[in-house]
Amino acid sequence: MLMNNIIDALKGAKNIAILPHVSVDGDGLGSSIALALSLKKINKEVIVYLEEEIPSVYSFLPGKALVKTFDYKKSIAGNPPHDVVVALDTGDVERMGERADIFNGARVTINIDHHHTNSEFAFYNYVLPDASATGEIIYKVIKMMGLELDFDTALCLYVAIATDTGGFRFSNTSGITHQITSDLVNNGVNVAEISQQIFDNISLAKTKLMGAAINSLELFENGKIAFISITDEMLKAAGAKDEDCDGIVNIGRSIVGVEVSFVARQKLNGEVKINLRSKNYVDVAAIASMYSGGGHKKAAGFSINKNIDILKKMLLKDIGELL
Amino acid sequence: MLMNNIIDALKGAKNIAILPHVSVDGDGLGSSIALALSLKKINKEVIVYLEEEIPSVYSFLPGKALVKTFDYKKSIAGNPPHDVVVALDTGDVERMGERADIFNGARVTINIDHHHTNSEFAFYNYVLPDASATGEIIYKVIKMMGLELDFDTALCLYVAIATDTGGFRFSNTSGITHQITSDLVNNGVNVAEISQQIFDNISLAKTKLMGAAINSLELFENGKIAFISITDEMLKAAGAKDEDCDGIVNIGRSIVGVEVSFVARQKLNGEVKINLRSKNYVDVAAIASMYSGGGHKKAAGFSINKNIDILKKMLLKDIGELL
Repeated sequence: MLMNNIIDALKGAKNIAILPHVSVDGDGLGSSIALALSLKKINKEVIVYLEEEIPSVYSFLPGKALVKTFDYKKSIAGNPPHDVVVALDTGDVERMGERADIFNGARVTINIDHHHTNSEFAFYNYVLPDASATGEIIYKVIKMMGLELDFDTALCLYVAIATDTGGFRFSNTSGITHQITSDLVNNGVNVAEISQQIFDNISLAKTKLMGAAINSLELFENGKIAFISITDEMLKAAGAKDEDCDGIVNIGRSIVGVEVSFVARQKLNGEVKINLRSKNYVDVAAIASMYSGGGHKKAAGFSINKNIDILKKMLLKDIGELL
Repeated sequence: MLMNNIIDALKGAKNIAILPHVSVDGDGLGSSIALALSLKKINKEVIVYLEEEIPSVYSFLPGKALVKTFDYKKSIAGNPPHDVVVALDTGDVERMGERADIFNGARVTINIDHHHTNSEFAFYNYVLPDASATGEIIYKVIKMMGLELDFDTALCLYVAIATDTGGFRFSNTSGITHQITSDLVNNGVNVAEISQQIFDNISLAKTKLMGAAINSLELFENGKIAFISITDEMLKAAGAKDEDCDGIVNIGRSIVGVEVSFVARQKLNGEVKINLRSKNYVDVAAIASMYSGGGHKKAAGFSINKNIDILKKMLLKDIGELL
């Protein structure tokens, strides 16, 4: 059985490196630290290499002594190869960034992931697309290795699962997800404190941008379409960055009665980025595809160079026909 | 065992009425319908009486044929008494409103609740303060009665638990909560769709009020104190009601670096309602108590008649001393 082969490889190794994907998130980091803490218990030399610093939102996580930001220059100076390198939550080799060197230099490589697009790039590939988070799979690995699930490990896995399921709200949340989480919570996770840390931690700039976005909000078609416009000036006034626009489209979608919400992010260079969300029945991917964009039925988008007033009128007509 | 007595009473009854508390919420309504659907299966005449209409946010719930809004005038005309009346999620008799008449007219009364303040007002009182929601207790009742947990019942119990735990984020969320929810999700609950229904359903007026609140947001003490002011004019401009101010204080508390958030709701009659929240260590109940208010360590408030500028200065000083 593949899982047994992976456990044998881990148990047989002296030194192990763990690599989550670049721009590490709660699942990548939580899963990695949980596995590292567990392997440390059976006296492995284990280290988690990140492409970047630990994101400040996750600075409360335990096990930071086992986490290092990868230094490419130091690495090419010649580190001994690792017995085993585990890529976690990483769909393909590119998502390892410069750390692909560590991966390629390993004696044995393992790929543990839940992305259905995973390219199975390692010697052992354990990919479970039905798992809500890689944290779910690492939970199983730890259990099957016969290792104790202590407070720190449970906390890391809780953060992994809670973040990748959007707080148990996304469609990937299964009965198994809640069953595993039950065990994690029974190990002492402070649900209220951790939920606050990971979900109620918004920058002042993003908060201000949300306020400006709401000010620009318009409803059409008897409140079934919500439209928000974000300009460079709004970003500047809020002190916000482009990434702070993420999720703004949900402000419109959350309004009672709205079926389609769309946001136009207008850049000074004339480019307009359109983000579309629907609530129940409108296929916004069909609309995005008319403008050479893509996405899913309820979440899609595209970029275009067009006058915003004309574009807005066109989209209101396109959406209106599907209501 | 008390639970067995309750089950015997339910099984022995011909007609049963179920009463959640006034201003019914997701737990009260979900638990009540789940119990009603289950009792219907063993051929009981069962009805859920509400003091009001089903709130529109819960209009998607199944079993509405078993739910009636109580009509006091019709009732005093003389309905036959019920064999059993079950009060659900209701801390005391007052929380039944006019439906207390139904309760008082019953042959046997049962009180199933999770509020630790419950006044044990019935013949059988089954109060579990450790349960995150009354839905958890009804889950156990249904299981112990040997009744099938079908899709509709699971959905109602999921809504009960998800709403009363703030989406599995409040401190009442236990390992048992997740274990029960695992079973509910395995019975086919569409997690993404239901989460959207119950959590992403904000009125346009409240959304606009949030925008105006963010515009009024000020930070003090190096970003450790957030202050929001809400006036009657802001409410009017947003088309919002006083109840829409609920939760506005969390906008400030969610900002990175903020320890204390407070909102001043200024009324035209000169009254100012202060709402305080802290994130980690400041005891805001101690501040509220200095103004004859009350609350918990991390959530407190008070009302006062005072010039807003003077009051704000006083509170900034009070809070600043605890930072």
